[in-house]
Amino acid sequence: MIFASDNWSGAHPAISTALSTHGAGMAAAYGASELDKAVERRFNEIFEREVAVFFVGTGTAANSLSFAAVNRPGGVVMCHREAHVVEDECGAPEFFTHGARMAPVDGALGRIDADHLRHELARFRPGFIHAGQPMAVTISQASEVGTLYGLDEISAIAAIAHEQDLAFHMDGARFANALAATNLSPADMTWRAGIDILSFGATKNGCWCAEAVVFFDPDKARQFPYIRKRGAQLFSKTRFMAAQFMAYLENGLWLELAAHANAMADRLRAGIDASSHARQAWETRSNEVFAILERPTAEALRAEGAMFYDWNMPHGSTGRLGENEQLVRLVTSWSTEAADVDRFGSLIA
Amino acid sequence: MIFASDNWSGAHPAISTALSTHGAGMAAAYGASELDKAVERRFNEIFEREVAVFFVGTGTAANSLSFAAVNRPGGVVMCHREAHVVEDECGAPEFFTHGARMAPVDGALGRIDADHLRHELARFRPGFIHAGQPMAVTISQASEVGTLYGLDEISAIAAIAHEQDLAFHMDGARFANALAATNLSPADMTWRAGIDILSFGATKNGCWCAEAVVFFDPDKARQFPYIRKRGAQLFSKTRFMAAQFMAYLENGLWLELAAHANAMADRLRAGIDASSHARQAWETRSNEVFAILERPTAEALRAEGAMFYDWNMPHGSTGRLGENEQLVRLVTSWSTEAADVDRFGSLIA
Amino acid sequence: MIFASDNWSGAHPAISTALSTHGAGMAAAYGASELDKAVERRFNEIFEREVAVFFVGTGTAANSLSFAAVNRPGGVVMCHREAHVVEDECGAPEFFTHGARMAPVDGALGRIDADHLRHELARFRPGFIHAGQPMAVTISQASEVGTLYGLDEISAIAAIAHEQDLAFHMDGARFANALAATNLSPADMTWRAGIDILSFGATKNGCWCAEAVVFFDPDKARQFPYIRKRGAQLFSKTRFMAAQFMAYLENGLWLELAAHANAMADRLRAGIDASSHARQAWETRSNEVFAILERPTAEALRAEGAMFYDWNMPHGSTGRLGENEQLVRLVTSWSTEAADVDRFGSLIA
Amino acid sequence: MIFASDNWSGAHPAISTALSTHGAGMAAAYGASELDKAVERRFNEIFEREVAVFFVGTGTAANSLSFAAVNRPGGVVMCHREAHVVEDECGAPEFFTHGARMAPVDGALGRIDADHLRHELARFRPGFIHAGQPMAVTISQASEVGTLYGLDEISAIAAIAHEQDLAFHMDGARFANALAATNLSPADMTWRAGIDILSFGATKNGCWCAEAVVFFDPDKARQFPYIRKRGAQLFSKTRFMAAQFMAYLENGLWLELAAHANAMADRLRAGIDASSHARQAWETRSNEVFAILERPTAEALRAEGAMFYDWNMPHGSTGRLGENEQLVRLVTSWSTEAADVDRFGSLIA
Repeated sequence: MIFASDNWSGAHPAISTALSTHGAGMAAAYGASELDKAVERRFNEIFEREVAVFFVGTGTAANSLSFAAVNRPGGVVMCHREAHVVEDECGAPEFFTHGARMAPVDGALGRIDADHLRHELARFRPGFIHAGQPMAVTISQASEVGTLYGLDEISAIAAIAHEQDLAFHMDGARFANALAATNLSPADMTWRAGIDILSFGATKNGCWCAEAVVFFDPDKARQFPYIRKRGAQLFSKTRFMAAQFMAYLENGLWLELAAHANAMADRLRAGIDASSHARQAWETRSNEVFAILERPTAEALRAEGAMFYDWNMPHGSTGRLGENEQLVRLVTSWSTEAADVDRFGSLIA
Repeated sequence: MIFASDNWSGAHPAISTALSTHGAGMAAAYGASELDKAVERRFNEIFEREVAVFFVGTGTAANSLSFAAVNRPGGVVMCHREAHVVEDECGAPEFFTHGARMAPVDGALGRIDADHLRHELARFRPGFIHAGQPMAVTISQASEVGTLYGLDEISAIAAIAHEQDLAFHMDGARFANALAATNLSPADMTWRAGIDILSFGATKNGCWCAEAVVFFDPDKARQFPYIRKRGAQLFSKTRFMAAQFMAYLENGLWLELAAHANAMADRLRAGIDASSHARQAWETRSNEVFAILERPTAEALRAEGAMFYDWNMPHGSTGRLGENEQLVRLVTSWSTEAADVDRFGSLIA
Repeated sequence: MIFASDNWSGAHPAISTALSTHGAGMAAAYGASELDKAVERRFNEIFEREVAVFFVGTGTAANSLSFAAVNRPGGVVMCHREAHVVEDECGAPEFFTHGARMAPVDGALGRIDADHLRHELARFRPGFIHAGQPMAVTISQASEVGTLYGLDEISAIAAIAHEQDLAFHMDGARFANALAATNLSPADMTWRAGIDILSFGATKNGCWCAEAVVFFDPDKARQFPYIRKRGAQLFSKTRFMAAQFMAYLENGLWLELAAHANAMADRLRAGIDASSHARQAWETRSNEVFAILERPTAEALRAEGAMFYDWNMPHGSTGRLGENEQLVRLVTSWSTEAADVDRFGSLIA
Repeated sequence: MIFASDNWSGAHPAISTALSTHGAGMAAAYGASELDKAVERRFNEIFEREVAVFFVGTGTAANSLSFAAVNRPGGVVMCHREAHVVEDECGAPEFFTHGARMAPVDGALGRIDADHLRHELARFRPGFIHAGQPMAVTISQASEVGTLYGLDEISAIAAIAHEQDLAFHMDGARFANALAATNLSPADMTWRAGIDILSFGATKNGCWCAEAVVFFDPDKARQFPYIRKRGAQLFSKTRFMAAQFMAYLENGLWLELAAHANAMADRLRAGIDASSHARQAWETRSNEVFAILERPTAEALRAEGAMFYDWNMPHGSTGRLGENEQLVRLVTSWSTEAADVDRFGSLIA
């Protein structure tokens, strides 16, 4: 009953097999091998256009280097108040951009509200040097609190961003979960809705270590090879990442794994909804569930070996904690087993 | 006949097996799993003392973050004129240190000369703010041009470094090859000779992606977790790196692989010495060989499928190129096959 | 009727005279002259203890380099939501600290609230690397919106800061105005209340360009000469800044000038209070006044040549704007003339 | 007999007068005053074209921010081995560029040799990410060792720089001395010879603190206001710098002062040439003289109150020190008096 995080899972057997298979023989390093090229073509197919794709080692690197690629002096990134880039990356986005500011924008349940975004941007008057200059907007899809942006919401934010010549970035650490939950195509979810750069995460969803930065306009990526290398994110045996991506993207494995994680979350949500000792703190989709548990229930679960983290009420949540209650986060993954979810369900019943 | 670089090799089957085995199940992320802890203990054993060890994704990251850990404002790293940190890391050491300078020190064949080091350091007068302040000395073992520092040379440099309160760093991208070539213990090669921080490379020698920063005084590493995370080098599923290290360090696999690479290089050296169309440009040990080839020989080799890079004459080389000659670098690895070496030998005979 | 900003004023004649006087002859550069040393001693006297004082060229430099001096990797500065370091320095604090985050703390009218500070700090759990680590708290005295911290408020914040081993910094761009408004001694306002580092501003109050960073524990300043030089803030002819400070601090000129500016602001406040077309938006002290004007009144003033800026309602303001009203900021300075204030008063009467 | 440095001099009376005159009254801050605008026009006239000019506080800032303005990721600045940006700026150029490397180029007596430059640039193969990418060439005019580039030399370097799309920067800390020594026009010395950006220094030559960055193509300067502010170099009362420049540039004062300094250096050179205890180490022009003194002579001079610094033999110097000799640097300035020079001359006679 491990619901601590999807990064507690390991690697899918298909990923391991790919690594074994491609471990033999010699191949050009630094992204020049046939396998690397094949993955690049695969990304073009998946996104239905030519993209520029760059492997990096962590989601933090993907986000930080994306911002570095579009930074301006005194640059400001508009992001949700509780974005991963603010709360969980130890200042890496600021570090890699030479001090760009992550400017908080409000919005319920992990999603930037377009009106608030417009309002915050209006505070930056053109030519008022002292305040710095916005250079990007970033959203997380799925969000940090298990919610999803609708396509109309993404498009509305894109319109504001592009009106002001800002790059529009999507943190897709759980991109596959968002796709699986909506049945949207990768292209629809991203560039067709106005996304310029995507942090494409595969690690949480069955890989060991496979992240990529995807530029939908390859022209904008011309300096990125230097940005990545200077950022110590150019791996030598890129085959090891290419092999993971190859297996991950083959025959829709990635969407299957995400769908499984989402389904396990659905099952968890159903169990919680059926319980009189627990309730969902807010509606989530994808593979994260936030539950308000009675304290004795939480203790009993942990005594039985359940792993999950206590959580703080996010900005804009309408749920209220009773005195004897606590908020917890439950994350499912590609490797979550139904039996564990059911056992959890029966323990809270 | 691929002698392009040791990073053209893949992963040893034991590494792949470890990744498959440890891919199952759930484990704490971010270095907190049992496997991570086991690897840490293994490093203590190998170095015969308590060390602080941190996994990172690239050798460039290991070097750059090592410098960041000991940096001072206006900091200067004394390094060999042709060190990897100067020539091949796209400014990452400067980037991660907020602008420390890599100050070139002369020395024959890739090795800092202690007298030159002392001379260069003397240029920094105490309290002369304008010049900045030295903060570290770094050496590569094995060096970039296939040579090795003797223990006495390392100790002599250590004495100078510590006299001036400078951290002494070793870039061990090919550390195992240096150990295998000298039969020295890891402890003798490092902290017993005065090394404070080691970039411990395993990628080139049979892993996919496994690098570590080793602090011989764990007290000096207290800020390093933040430095690593801010540098986007804290991986979530650290198990994947721990699994590689576990297999790599088990039963001396790492030294066996390095010994094989070195032996293949010896065989190559013998072949070159026996040839009348080729000669060694200078004496190397470990797994790099630098050969002066007659141009037609080089062309013939390439026509037969041999892969190797042309090289520039390094500083301090006494070899001279004839008009019809060229200098090439040949690198062997854990996966180099004797048949390929022999074929190369017969082609130049 | 120029109430745009105190930095629209020029230099007091005593400052000009000092610059003329000290312009002759030769003197050691880079802070080594007798005059530089005399100013350092003067700072010791003023603060009633040995301090380490460093001249810099701008308030932005003083703040940014102060933070750089106490930074930690992944560092976070706790500051008021509307602090100058957030709103008006174009990311310089982040830039000079290699990406430290300015973390917003709430509090009414430009002042950090100690309870909110404690609450925000509690979010950083020890050892939770991802969130980064707080390293300093900064307050502005006088604040950006004309208010002042009481000594008890400063002490309360100091207690929280020091409990958690954070440096406590005061942005004293208008330090003299705060002293003049409270009749507190420089020592009482700063280190006796727990301040560790002060940005000591003199530019707004009668100098041309004279700012200093004051460390109340000189031991903490040992690396600062390098930090300043690397930050391009070590001036060669430091005499020009020393001469300004010497005249500024002689016979209490600085407090006289600040008292004049404050008195002019009092006169302005009185005029506003007496008007039926204007009212104070909130109570201020020192040399800034925030007024809510009827729009026709504002227009009439500007038609008569009055200069002042429109302003946004700050966080925590209880004033409300009527439909036909606007908020404006009025700043007085050492060179504001009573006649101008009176004319302004009669125009709004 | 102060020949320590030209920055030991103070400010010319005309500068002091300008500061007094412009100290009165109110004027827009941050470069928006009439006086600021007038100085900008003056720069256009002096350079015979529209330029973009930005005041900064130090020569180090001028150089560092110039590089920041043209930087690329993994950027490399080609500079003379003994350039001020390498030897005397405590890593500020690297700091402000987020880690650009200052790559040393050889050349006799402080001047980059065009052939060596071409040779060093050839080491950067297009697309070889690991080495980083050149982004600028910088020269100092007058050089650090008192020599001057001829126009043909500047043009030759410009051709190489522009061929490779590199910005060409001139460090003009002693620009006026170079003009006065050659009778060339500011336009001929800079943009007509291919210079893109000039660090225009006035501090050493009679101002207190007046440096500027001049872009000969204003389009390239569009981001510079943010770069400067983020770099803490936007002064509030820019009038104080504008006033200095106004007086400095009026009626050719700047060239007169430089001509005086040069003439004093000529007189010094003549005295040295006439001595049998001293000789010039190499031929200089402008206001720096390098002399080889017999040790007893040097001691005698110092005993009489002469101030000058010992110096190291620069790269490419053909002079040789005898056992009983030492190399010293002698710098004259706008305020050097002929009597002092003559006294020096008679002491070495």
